[in-house]
Amino acid sequence: MHVTIEQAEKAIEAARKRALELNTQMCIAIVDSGANLKAFYRMDDAWVGSIDIAVKKARTAVFFGMPSGQIGKLSQPGGPLFGIEHSNDGLITFPGGLPIVDADGVMIGAIGVSGSSVENDHAVAKAGGEALGVCDLPEHPWRT
Amino acid sequence: MHVTIEQAEKAIEAARKRALELNTQMCIAIVDSGANLKAFYRMDDAWVGSIDIAVKKARTAVFFGMPSGQIGKLSQPGGPLFGIEHSNDGLITFPGGLPIVDADGVMIGAIGVSGSSVENDHAVAKAGGEALGVCDLPEHPWRT
Amino acid sequence: MHVTIEQAEKAIEAARKRALELNTQMCIAIVDSGANLKAFYRMDDAWVGSIDIAVKKARTAVFFGMPSGQIGKLSQPGGPLFGIEHSNDGLITFPGGLPIVDADGVMIGAIGVSGSSVENDHAVAKAGGEALGVCDLPEHPWRT
Amino acid sequence: MHVTIEQAEKAIEAARKRALELNTQMCIAIVDSGANLKAFYRMDDAWVGSIDIAVKKARTAVFFGMPSGQIGKLSQPGGPLFGIEHSNDGLITFPGGLPIVDADGVMIGAIGVSGSSVENDHAVAKAGGEALGVCDLPEHPWRT
Repeated sequence: MHVTIEQAEKAIEAARKRALELNTQMCIAIVDSGANLKAFYRMDDAWVGSIDIAVKKARTAVFFGMPSGQIGKLSQPGGPLFGIEHSNDGLITFPGGLPIVDADGVMIGAIGVSGSSVENDHAVAKAGGEALGVCDLPEHPWRT
Repeated sequence: MHVTIEQAEKAIEAARKRALELNTQMCIAIVDSGANLKAFYRMDDAWVGSIDIAVKKARTAVFFGMPSGQIGKLSQPGGPLFGIEHSNDGLITFPGGLPIVDADGVMIGAIGVSGSSVENDHAVAKAGGEALGVCDLPEHPWRT
Repeated sequence: MHVTIEQAEKAIEAARKRALELNTQMCIAIVDSGANLKAFYRMDDAWVGSIDIAVKKARTAVFFGMPSGQIGKLSQPGGPLFGIEHSNDGLITFPGGLPIVDADGVMIGAIGVSGSSVENDHAVAKAGGEALGVCDLPEHPWRT
Repeated sequence: MHVTIEQAEKAIEAARKRALELNTQMCIAIVDSGANLKAFYRMDDAWVGSIDIAVKKARTAVFFGMPSGQIGKLSQPGGPLFGIEHSNDGLITFPGGLPIVDADGVMIGAIGVSGSSVENDHAVAKAGGEALGVCDLPEHPWRT
């Protein structure tokens, strides 16, 4: 099951609202459960360098079914996943990418946000994901 | 001057309407005058392979300030630009990519559409671009 | 819906049998509906260069929901899709890639075969796909 | 001497059994002594991001004739091989990749596993490799 464009638009709209509240300019990417781009939205004056980061955060989240920042905790020097960023044409492993899981625990895609501090990026991604009813992330979400 | 997100959304909406009239499922990409992604919209059931093609058509159009298909006429075997597709991380040189030029003749970005025949792709791109007031493309549009 | 590993193995086994009947050494790739690799099998003495071709044929088939060779007919010099091979990190547009569509008309993945003539590659891919009950390919198969 | 497809299948089957015992969903890749993909198997619900990591772990192991994790010990900041991951289209240098060495000490290929903790990835790779009779890895295995 892949995220629909209607769902993607809803998530982007919620993320955009949160970004405005935080007075930030964000890039917001939605990918489906195959990590393929579904929708993308770049607010005016957002960093151009955030385009690729937003997409890669979303892809990273769906690649491993977990928040992008969770991987970053494990990929530090000396950590068990040091260097994992070299896989999959480049991962981004700091916060701002979140899987989108439906009510049945099925991962239908992910949202990635970049353009401000990682705290703000995460907050905006969370607002987007929650607009689709995501609550608790199961330990190992599956795809169908 | 770059396309704004408001303009990008307007172009996508007009393109989407045309795509529905033609009973097609399209990927629609908007890039700014730096060829960087501004907005992207993938209709449900659009081909996954069209994601990259839509983006590359838009980039191709803005790279050279002309419709993507115009380059394709010059890049055939024996033609003056044979093999140009190898540049810029890959061009797509068949129709479906159009520069977006404002009333002052300034190229503010481009639209790229993929998902059906090249005739339909072009028609949908045209509908999107015209929603922003594009009329006649000057011979060499400039960027500011 | 993605192809399961049980289905992938079944398709590979049927393809392998056909390859042996034809006295060929093939690379056989199965991708899911997101174009991500599910299973791969390289017969002994198959060309090393066929590894990437088999994978790209499968990806090409799922990218556009049609046999890879159908795209190749349109991408010849002077054709409407000339140069499409430059998209999606490289397409292979000659025969040997086929979408795998289930009884509900849902595209669950694709099979790609390389290692002999395109006629043989196609025959082996067909044997693999048919093992999963694929019969008539709908005009525009969808993904769920 | 390259790993045969019969050996590759045997290694995958042993790895799969170990993965099931550990209640994990793994991607399992076998490459030959030229670092070219021989066979690949993705269990249902394995992370999509693990496809590339499993392949890269196997390639890393065969590139240098040592376990992938052994390289990771040398590629930490301040270490002698810092940044080696940038070579060869991307290495993965944490555990889960093991050379496959035959009874004569000849490296015939490698196995790479990804999908769980690095401890589990390593255990599954070890089970796969040992199914082919690998025992002690010589200091510098050779290829023929």
